[in-house]
Amino acid sequence: MGEDKILFLGDIRKMEEELLMIPGPVPVLPRILRAMSKPMIHHRGDEFGQLYDEIVGILKEIFQTRNDLFVLSGSGTCAMEAAVGNLADKKTGIVCVTNGKFGDRFEEIAGRYKADVVTTVNFAWGRPIELETVKEALENRLNPKVVTMVHNETSTGILNPAKEVGKLARKHDAVFVLDCITSIGGDVVHVDEFCADIAIVGSQKCLGAPPGMSAISVSEKAWDLMLANKKRPYYMDLVAYKKSIEKKQTPYTPALSLFFALHEALAVIKEEGMEKRIERHRMLAKAVRTAITSFGLSLFPELNEVSDYSNTVTAINIPHELTYEQIRGGMRKRGVIVAGGQEKLKGKIFRIATMGNITEKEVLRTIQALEQVLMENKYYGKNSEI
Amino acid sequence: MGEDKILFLGDIRKMEEELLMIPGPVPVLPRILRAMSKPMIHHRGDEFGQLYDEIVGILKEIFQTRNDLFVLSGSGTCAMEAAVGNLADKKTGIVCVTNGKFGDRFEEIAGRYKADVVTTVNFAWGRPIELETVKEALENRLNPKVVTMVHNETSTGILNPAKEVGKLARKHDAVFVLDCITSIGGDVVHVDEFCADIAIVGSQKCLGAPPGMSAISVSEKAWDLMLANKKRPYYMDLVAYKKSIEKKQTPYTPALSLFFALHEALAVIKEEGMEKRIERHRMLAKAVRTAITSFGLSLFPELNEVSDYSNTVTAINIPHELTYEQIRGGMRKRGVIVAGGQEKLKGKIFRIATMGNITEKEVLRTIQALEQVLMENKYYGKNSEI
Repeated sequence: MGEDKILFLGDIRKMEEELLMIPGPVPVLPRILRAMSKPMIHHRGDEFGQLYDEIVGILKEIFQTRNDLFVLSGSGTCAMEAAVGNLADKKTGIVCVTNGKFGDRFEEIAGRYKADVVTTVNFAWGRPIELETVKEALENRLNPKVVTMVHNETSTGILNPAKEVGKLARKHDAVFVLDCITSIGGDVVHVDEFCADIAIVGSQKCLGAPPGMSAISVSEKAWDLMLANKKRPYYMDLVAYKKSIEKKQTPYTPALSLFFALHEALAVIKEEGMEKRIERHRMLAKAVRTAITSFGLSLFPELNEVSDYSNTVTAINIPHELTYEQIRGGMRKRGVIVAGGQEKLKGKIFRIATMGNITEKEVLRTIQALEQVLMENKYYGKNSEI
Repeated sequence: MGEDKILFLGDIRKMEEELLMIPGPVPVLPRILRAMSKPMIHHRGDEFGQLYDEIVGILKEIFQTRNDLFVLSGSGTCAMEAAVGNLADKKTGIVCVTNGKFGDRFEEIAGRYKADVVTTVNFAWGRPIELETVKEALENRLNPKVVTMVHNETSTGILNPAKEVGKLARKHDAVFVLDCITSIGGDVVHVDEFCADIAIVGSQKCLGAPPGMSAISVSEKAWDLMLANKKRPYYMDLVAYKKSIEKKQTPYTPALSLFFALHEALAVIKEEGMEKRIERHRMLAKAVRTAITSFGLSLFPELNEVSDYSNTVTAINIPHELTYEQIRGGMRKRGVIVAGGQEKLKGKIFRIATMGNITEKEVLRTIQALEQVLMENKYYGKNSEI
């Protein structure tokens, strides 16, 4: 090996000055980062068992579920595949209800497992989910065994009607898979009340932990399908997780440092209390929306009576006078990182997240930076009186 | 949520006093742990690109490969499934050469993807691989497209003939998948010289980083098979990784903190130099073996002319006078954690790892503890002159 220098010094100062307002990874509190400095422990020992047990216990409270719950050493996408891959075999009819990138992802994953039995109830990205259309699809689709939906669609900033679609799925005796990756920990989620047989959360979103982990809850009804499926994925085989958790273990080596961090992040959540935490998320998203409209910008999602603006990420239309590069670049110059639109929404929207342990201070800094960028580019908004 | 206390306080002092001599997770140097205290960065930004790029560059040097290489946010098992799952479709004949738990794991994974075309060349756990048997199997197996093997079989402490089996696979124009999870970074591995079309390493083994990551290299020949396979897994879809790395990104959110740690672990490796590092591993394993035999204990693996004792983990027979619980418990009382036998080897062997950034000091402490445990239990060995 050569003696060449390693270049990435990690400009910590710059990293610490930049404010991540993207929908994950979110900024992680120093005390949570420090939790990762703990030394390694034996992943088959009692200490790990206690750690895992406590994490699972707190997550069940946060999920509001009595179902089984596991922590996966993989991102939210890993948990989405765990859900669909464990449920789907050749005979499984899957209905994917989608109105955004992450809703579509369920369909893509289902296609990898069994493309010919996937029905998509497809709404345009940013449009609300119409219950009547979902109802019709479920009635016309002979024996749908699984229904998937994203609760908080991060790609468009819309909150989908989880409880209502859950009821429809239950009526058809289908397993309801609900992606709560960016809602649990920041918005109201009652997994059992929502009839969500499978619910998923990501670590690096509203929970305020670093990325690389996800948690998934599984109901009895979901187990019935999974246990009958002989072609389950391996690394994310939930039946293996179920067997291992009896010994308070994971089937394969867990990402220990991330478990330490998640445990600390959950301690932060318990200290704040879920009600206060959800209220904080709600207020901060509202503050962003209020600022946006007062600047003459407009919100991207269209709503109906069963949908709402997301309380964890706000999607904003880029007016034709401006480009995404101007907004992103201008904000970055001021130390604030925002996210753009994904795929077909590239250049059309930008997104500001209010997830995790973000406070008023960070939101004000973001709004202020945005205002400066708009002024710098002489955008005063069509509705602005300036 | 209740006001109940969180119990897991993480007895850091105890954790720091205990010496992990198990084959992963290995003890992680404080400077590597501290690297995880870095704040989050945007996983689609330039800083992440630079970080990922440098990690990949150094890993390619360590792998001794010109093939593509990716870092997965998942354990070694995740990378094993990535290899087999991306390669295997209905028409793929797979030959799994195995003489231990992890060799068998390839077969299990292949079974999930396409059970009916899997041939196993099976040697008893702890027995060496016979090249003649492998050769016959490849000749009798019509058109084997993939051959899998574990280089360093952690479950039995044996080093398998990678180069020789690689040559046989190449002769049959098969893609050779080599699990180097516990050899790369601690033993001689020349991925390209070994004709390993796919090679895998785990983060928490000889690289000395925390668990939760793995790296995988992919040759042109392997790409040909993967690109033709339409039912690839999703989270570990290597074609998606290939596409994303052009932008120096990963397809799904990477475990950032673990990337920071891995980068620092690779810096440690560069500072030591690979030759010295391998020599250190060799010396430490030899010291363990010498002590073991001088205590009258015996080594578990049987060797032939193309196999060797592992330089990263030593598997030791438990004599009939003693139980695993006595050995493990006695060592733990002295602050040293060793591993037992897995599955069919439970109670029959125990294992001492010499992986990562372990030094003479830790090995001496381990040997001393073992000696005390043997004396405490009045075991002086059948070959001992005491």
